[in-house]
Amino acid sequence: MGTTPSNTSTAPSGTSRRDEILRVAGELFRRHGYHATSMRELAKRLNLRGASLYAHIDSKEELLREIVDRAADAFLASARGVPCDASPVARLEAFVRGHLRVIEGQIETAAVFFHEWTHLSGPARQHVVERRDAYQAELRAIVAAGVASGDFDVEDVDVATLLTLSTLNWSYQWLDPRGRLPLEELTAFYTEYVLGALGAGKGAQR
Amino acid sequence: MGTTPSNTSTAPSGTSRRDEILRVAGELFRRHGYHATSMRELAKRLNLRGASLYAHIDSKEELLREIVDRAADAFLASARGVPCDASPVARLEAFVRGHLRVIEGQIETAAVFFHEWTHLSGPARQHVVERRDAYQAELRAIVAAGVASGDFDVEDVDVATLLTLSTLNWSYQWLDPRGRLPLEELTAFYTEYVLGALGAGKGAQR
Repeated sequence: MGTTPSNTSTAPSGTSRRDEILRVAGELFRRHGYHATSMRELAKRLNLRGASLYAHIDSKEELLREIVDRAADAFLASARGVPCDASPVARLEAFVRGHLRVIEGQIETAAVFFHEWTHLSGPARQHVVERRDAYQAELRAIVAAGVASGDFDVEDVDVATLLTLSTLNWSYQWLDPRGRLPLEELTAFYTEYVLGALGAGKGAQR
Repeated sequence: MGTTPSNTSTAPSGTSRRDEILRVAGELFRRHGYHATSMRELAKRLNLRGASLYAHIDSKEELLREIVDRAADAFLASARGVPCDASPVARLEAFVRGHLRVIEGQIETAAVFFHEWTHLSGPARQHVVERRDAYQAELRAIVAAGVASGDFDVEDVDVATLLTLSTLNWSYQWLDPRGRLPLEELTAFYTEYVLGALGAGKGAQR
């Protein structure tokens, strides 16, 4: 579950200084937790003096807010990119693929999004809660459409949505972007699992 | 996701001083993260001087180790209490009930077990990994038994086990011991969901 130390000299070209700060902050927040990460350590990892770091950002909470915001953007864009004229089964599959792709593509950010967001407070926290709710609503709409069309068979759409999101979310704990399962294979396993859970049956219409 | 402040004067009678220290440490680790929790804050919450706290425990890591150990004990005892002569469907249901009961009964400890354990190092960390693997093996045996008996229909027993554990584990994030769903109802929802995911079909033999 650990992360390998980053090396600023290997930052992808085209990455802005701000992106780089966010990337390293995300790694540190994930590894040590938000509260236990100091700005001093972050500056050191970026080969910056503390004062130079503050030229880029105002506070540690600003970093957390932006990391969580970017993750929420990615999850929401993914969900909203699911074609709503497709069948419920195809929409579910697209939702699953998008969710796993976001996690796989930015595992540090996703981990901070899933765990460290609780350290935000006030309007920033409220903003995340609203966006998490919006994301859940996108999935709920797919589950409800499947129930309406007769493709899915669940007793309680809200609970089924929550359990499906639980199944998907925990993957940030074990998903290894360099692991043995390519994204498409993982998507196929997840989709089959979740479709079964939603009572879709093996022959459900794609 | 927050926790309400504890009050040592309301500790259940019969609780040992050590239990109380572990309970409060679990709350703090959950709320602030392991690294961000100081022994000073723990002593303050327990109305103890720092020196008195060290009469009970050697280090913060000892606390984390014991909290995680106790959670692992509870999960393993629950899994090992599942009658192995029952049908795979009944065994799965008992596993689900036991898992949710452990989380519901000690939500702080469970949260620390699921998230903060990564801050353990050396043999203590290895010990947790072994016990997590042992727990996963108990679930895997149930899934494999269901496949062997024809009750379940999954492509890959290991992946199916991992996804089922993912579905169950994430519940610590939203399960509210004072929430609207009683344990039996939650168990029923979860069991139906997971049985469907494992291809058991609605008419599978209990």
